[in-house]
Amino acid sequence: MKKLYITMISLAFLNGLCYTVNAQKRPLAASAIDKKVDALITKMTLEEKVGQMTEVTSDVVSKSGGGAHELDPEKLKEAIMKYHVGSILNVTGTAYERSHWYDVISQIQKAADQDRLKIPVIYGIDAIHGVTYTVGSTLFPQEIALAATFNKSLARKMGEITAYETRASYIPWNYSPVLDLGRSALWPRIYETLGEDPYVVKTMGAEIIKGYQGNDVGDKYHVAACMKHYLGYSFPLSGKDRTPSWIPDRYMREYFLPSFAEAVKAGAKTLMINSGEISGVPVHASKYLLTDVLRGELHFDGIAVTDWRDIQYLHDRHHVAATQKDAVMIAVNAGVDMSMVPYDYTFYTYLIELVKEGKVSIARVNEAVHRILKVKYELGLFERPVGNPDDYPKFGSDEFRQASVQAANEAITLLKNNNHVLPLKKDIKVLVTGPTANTMRSLDGGWSYTWQGDLSDKFAANKNTILEAIQQKIGKENVTYEAGASFDSLQNIDETVKAAKNADAIVLCLGELSYTENVGNIDDLNLPAAQTQLALELAKTGKPVILVLAEGRPRIVTDAESKSAATIMAYLPGNEGGDAIAGVLFGDVNPSGRLSITYPRYTNALVNYYRKNLENGNSDDKHGYNPLYEFGYGLSYTTFSYSNLRISKPELKDNETLSISIDVKNTGQLEGKESVLLYISQLYASIAPDTKRLRAFDKISLKPGESKTVTFKISPKDLAFVNDVSKTVTEAGEFKIQLGDQTQSFNYVSEKDQPSRTGRL
Amino acid sequence: MKKLYITMISLAFLNGLCYTVNAQKRPLAASAIDKKVDALITKMTLEEKVGQMTEVTSDVVSKSGGGAHELDPEKLKEAIMKYHVGSILNVTGTAYERSHWYDVISQIQKAADQDRLKIPVIYGIDAIHGVTYTVGSTLFPQEIALAATFNKSLARKMGEITAYETRASYIPWNYSPVLDLGRSALWPRIYETLGEDPYVVKTMGAEIIKGYQGNDVGDKYHVAACMKHYLGYSFPLSGKDRTPSWIPDRYMREYFLPSFAEAVKAGAKTLMINSGEISGVPVHASKYLLTDVLRGELHFDGIAVTDWRDIQYLHDRHHVAATQKDAVMIAVNAGVDMSMVPYDYTFYTYLIELVKEGKVSIARVNEAVHRILKVKYELGLFERPVGNPDDYPKFGSDEFRQASVQAANEAITLLKNNNHVLPLKKDIKVLVTGPTANTMRSLDGGWSYTWQGDLSDKFAANKNTILEAIQQKIGKENVTYEAGASFDSLQNIDETVKAAKNADAIVLCLGELSYTENVGNIDDLNLPAAQTQLALELAKTGKPVILVLAEGRPRIVTDAESKSAATIMAYLPGNEGGDAIAGVLFGDVNPSGRLSITYPRYTNALVNYYRKNLENGNSDDKHGYNPLYEFGYGLSYTTFSYSNLRISKPELKDNETLSISIDVKNTGQLEGKESVLLYISQLYASIAPDTKRLRAFDKISLKPGESKTVTFKISPKDLAFVNDVSKTVTEAGEFKIQLGDQTQSFNYVSEKDQPSRTGRL
Repeated sequence: MKKLYITMISLAFLNGLCYTVNAQKRPLAASAIDKKVDALITKMTLEEKVGQMTEVTSDVVSKSGGGAHELDPEKLKEAIMKYHVGSILNVTGTAYERSHWYDVISQIQKAADQDRLKIPVIYGIDAIHGVTYTVGSTLFPQEIALAATFNKSLARKMGEITAYETRASYIPWNYSPVLDLGRSALWPRIYETLGEDPYVVKTMGAEIIKGYQGNDVGDKYHVAACMKHYLGYSFPLSGKDRTPSWIPDRYMREYFLPSFAEAVKAGAKTLMINSGEISGVPVHASKYLLTDVLRGELHFDGIAVTDWRDIQYLHDRHHVAATQKDAVMIAVNAGVDMSMVPYDYTFYTYLIELVKEGKVSIARVNEAVHRILKVKYELGLFERPVGNPDDYPKFGSDEFRQASVQAANEAITLLKNNNHVLPLKKDIKVLVTGPTANTMRSLDGGWSYTWQGDLSDKFAANKNTILEAIQQKIGKENVTYEAGASFDSLQNIDETVKAAKNADAIVLCLGELSYTENVGNIDDLNLPAAQTQLALELAKTGKPVILVLAEGRPRIVTDAESKSAATIMAYLPGNEGGDAIAGVLFGDVNPSGRLSITYPRYTNALVNYYRKNLENGNSDDKHGYNPLYEFGYGLSYTTFSYSNLRISKPELKDNETLSISIDVKNTGQLEGKESVLLYISQLYASIAPDTKRLRAFDKISLKPGESKTVTFKISPKDLAFVNDVSKTVTEAGEFKIQLGDQTQSFNYVSEKDQPSRTGRL
Repeated sequence: MKKLYITMISLAFLNGLCYTVNAQKRPLAASAIDKKVDALITKMTLEEKVGQMTEVTSDVVSKSGGGAHELDPEKLKEAIMKYHVGSILNVTGTAYERSHWYDVISQIQKAADQDRLKIPVIYGIDAIHGVTYTVGSTLFPQEIALAATFNKSLARKMGEITAYETRASYIPWNYSPVLDLGRSALWPRIYETLGEDPYVVKTMGAEIIKGYQGNDVGDKYHVAACMKHYLGYSFPLSGKDRTPSWIPDRYMREYFLPSFAEAVKAGAKTLMINSGEISGVPVHASKYLLTDVLRGELHFDGIAVTDWRDIQYLHDRHHVAATQKDAVMIAVNAGVDMSMVPYDYTFYTYLIELVKEGKVSIARVNEAVHRILKVKYELGLFERPVGNPDDYPKFGSDEFRQASVQAANEAITLLKNNNHVLPLKKDIKVLVTGPTANTMRSLDGGWSYTWQGDLSDKFAANKNTILEAIQQKIGKENVTYEAGASFDSLQNIDETVKAAKNADAIVLCLGELSYTENVGNIDDLNLPAAQTQLALELAKTGKPVILVLAEGRPRIVTDAESKSAATIMAYLPGNEGGDAIAGVLFGDVNPSGRLSITYPRYTNALVNYYRKNLENGNSDDKHGYNPLYEFGYGLSYTTFSYSNLRISKPELKDNETLSISIDVKNTGQLEGKESVLLYISQLYASIAPDTKRLRAFDKISLKPGESKTVTFKISPKDLAFVNDVSKTVTEAGEFKIQLGDQTQSFNYVSEKDQPSRTGRL
């Protein structure tokens, strides 16, 4: 599987080109596209090249004051003809009709066609969990809920459908998926991640990318994926968005890098850079991360685009550039290919000056432009800059909706079910209450129709809230609704308690309203006190409280949850989430979701499941590891038994594979799906080993009484960790397998990788 | 100031010794003591050498089941004659009379005198804020309170008195000071630190060491200091004691290392190792930290001792050693000199085997033994193994007590004083209430008479609680006391509210009970709800609430504090703290303390004052940096004005010094002390600069109307930071000075240290 590399210098020589790049390597065989790109670059002026590296927001080419982005032909002409901008991104506004998108993209590409070299513009958009900004699109569960399905085919499907509908909106570039590791419960974008486990993020993330890009990213139904946010964005020390991280290189490689490495292998075409700073180094200024690691180690060959204003922020916010011009120099020299400027042409002006002054090499510019043009060719933009409105009959179809339904059904995670209170019978009287009961905002979250998801009740008015879904399920006459509380204050508590007394069961819907990025910052992970109070007041009635949590992150609910008869974690399950929740509540759906993140018990006890042994606590410390619910936890309405755990050999040697098999049987009365999670623990290693780590998973469906054997293949590299000298190694020693309640040990015997024991930090 | 170094190989050759040490360097001139040590080592067997490296707890040589450590002659004989143990440490039990200590130490040294080489045992003890384990000793404010005085002479004085009283207890080795940076408000030992600022920790820490060790550590009045806990102990990611840290090398050097570097320069004789693990590397297994940095860079020449059981924990807890024997090998090879085993002789047995097997070199053993014996010689233990009971007339004297009084007076920090409600008049009726009002445990904290400080009300019965001090101050007849609440539940709330209504003012004492180490772990930084409730109920009476906080860490009190008329942070002010608080309340003491740590407003918003600019928040984020009170904050009963800030030159060049002067005037009616804090901000740098950093401070006393000029000398190295390649540099650029409300800018112009911009993490 080794590839041969030659330096770009040689490549340039072979192609007779006039530019060279120093250290960067590229696969030996230059593709036909590479040749086309190289030919085009030879024709380009410096200004045209720098224009390709410039991305402005749609506002810049739109009439000012307009709500929708109504393009301004003069501004558009200036952008194209004067500044040769290579890319425009979507920002303001709400969801629009496909016909509007057709107009917008057509106008832009028509303008681009007027420029000397007729290079199409690449338009980028955030279609995070389905197509955010197109009316009638299929909105899926957010990534954190998708991860809870532990169903790789659903991740692939979500990618395929989203790509189809993005192209149906005439847009070829999707700023998705988020491949950040969701470690901090506080971070307002944790719901955009695939949860806390590196293996889940890596495998599910790669599936989404394969879905987005298909076999041919240039066909009518696929788009360029954008890996976000390279690297280490998700674990700010303070929990606030875009604040500093302390991530040692070792853990960056152990926990945060693998999802990006896997995405590169899956062929991801583009990458967006983390807006934060790591140990004081803004990633946009890090040659180490953007060039040495990303290009030199991961061999990523696509576009690295900044996030919002992030070159300017090197001066304004990070203070690592004394001037805006220095900021451009630092970022481009570090390895940035495209600047999301986004409001002006300063990047363009400064970069031209810097090249002329010799502070940025033309080779660096050529390298960036090569990557940008290559993706444009690969996407077919030169032949088909807009797309044909008639090519997308499945847009917003019921077929697509069913995929979202399945994802929501498999995401919903049942955390508690005392005395089998669930499923509820359909002939009972139910009180539905709580702030998340009757709004689509708490099901869809941010990036739904608008940036903050604040118009979901308008745009998804035809979708069911939790209340509406329950009403449909058991009849309006059996459902009482009282608000009980807003998100942060009690409302009609007396009426609500009274209604509770008249009901057979209470469906209490707590959680959060929609948000993303810094707007979602919080200073306290505890659920606002009013919601807890509502829960405690309702519990006093003695009626069973079914707690439904619709929220982007695991807010602390310990007091409220201690009073519930059953607890359902719904995350942000998307447009079909109301129906999925009702399906679980009344037994039409047998829940199979498992927590993709640890649900913490206390606000200052935020430890992930793959903790160190040191964090387990000990007998004289009642404050050891003790989450409310651990990662991977989730109940079903049926029961599964695990037995006959067996391994193919007692010792695993170098270059061998170990087969691990387990028999799983449905021992209950209902058909059900089961996520089979393979944990492996290394007992001793030169770096303190994680208590356990997920190394593989599979999801199976079993009829009552049915049994299946699940087999995993594990090779030494699947057990690797990053050692004291930042090398990925598997050290010899004893390993413990955990599958359900079954455990078994094996030894890995190796001639290689003896611990180096330098003790480097 | 450069020293010349030669390798130990040459040194050994010069001295005609039979052992060699490889890489380690030592100053050229071998002292007379070095020669004595070398001579002794040549006579020692391997067993005798390894014995010196072995430290056991007093339990091991005491009769089992006894409360006090009643020595068991047979066990003691076994320890000395069979295992040649070099050190014994104190652990269990409570405070004892000096005469008891005389007996214990005499018996131990007498036993040591029976061994072939008659090497005295070094007994070590935790005398953290004064002599913990001797009845009648002088207990000072804990370090976090000492730091709040910003008075270096008080730190020195505390060190001198503690050393005197430790020697008066016949003990020559004090496991103090803690030089860890107090960054995490959650960490249960933050009160043992000198607060959050690296410069304060460094300067005050060095003063304590100079106090402990004096000019001659071997005289009757001084002891060997022990720098704790090398390195990075204080910032566990979870906030729990002895749990993993993520500290990148750059920040280790920027924030955590300087206090140890300064302590080495101050001559500290010994060092205790951090029990935690940093990025998965237990410090006890880190050759990088224990040898490369500590010896190679800091040139520390003294003893590195483990913390409690920490070699065994390499196997049991960290899981980086597959066996206990491996643990010994890893730790000793990394650079551990002495093992606090502490309960058995396994370390001894394993290490002898390892040397015989060639897995640990005899050179490494000789090096460790050299350091241990050298300190024993320096302490005068060979000539005077016990000490003379009559030599310590000042033990527990009023002279010493006055130093503790002054430290407490200057530590108390006035945070709020609405409408000059303080000082209170002495002829009013006061209600004193709250869980910290009448216990010495909340003034002394842990490490007071016992490990957890749980017997302070017995041993410090002659000292005043806050209640008793107020009663003494204004007469019992003017003071009503009601508990109001325990630490975590409301008590006689109705009587308390009633009493409040009959009082002119309420002194509400909230906070924490004593604790240390893992016993003090918490899962929620919020003050327990009952204490907040008590505050809110009392506030409803409309009577002025004077909130007094006696606590080891800044528990979140935002709701309670929003209702107070005045707020006093008392930290853990020690045995004289009750009187100091009463002194401030009634105006006999003009407060001059300033916060040595940020007081956070919210439980998940824990950011230090020397944050990054990225953490300042922005206009669309109401969750930016916003502590309840910032580091360095503190009010006085008089007022000070700052004026005429001036610098000696507008540009600072290499090898120059900048003088910064400010005039400070007492513009109020009372004499007062003022801590003058010099903050400097670098505006732009290659690593995101801290928003501001304390670079110097001074404390002055001013009579009403009096003015003084304070001058600071700053050289380029005082403005340094650690860059992307872990090098300490000062980069050219603009700097902003802040002194009180005065600001001024200057430029540093340099030929050196251009940013490297590798962007390494």
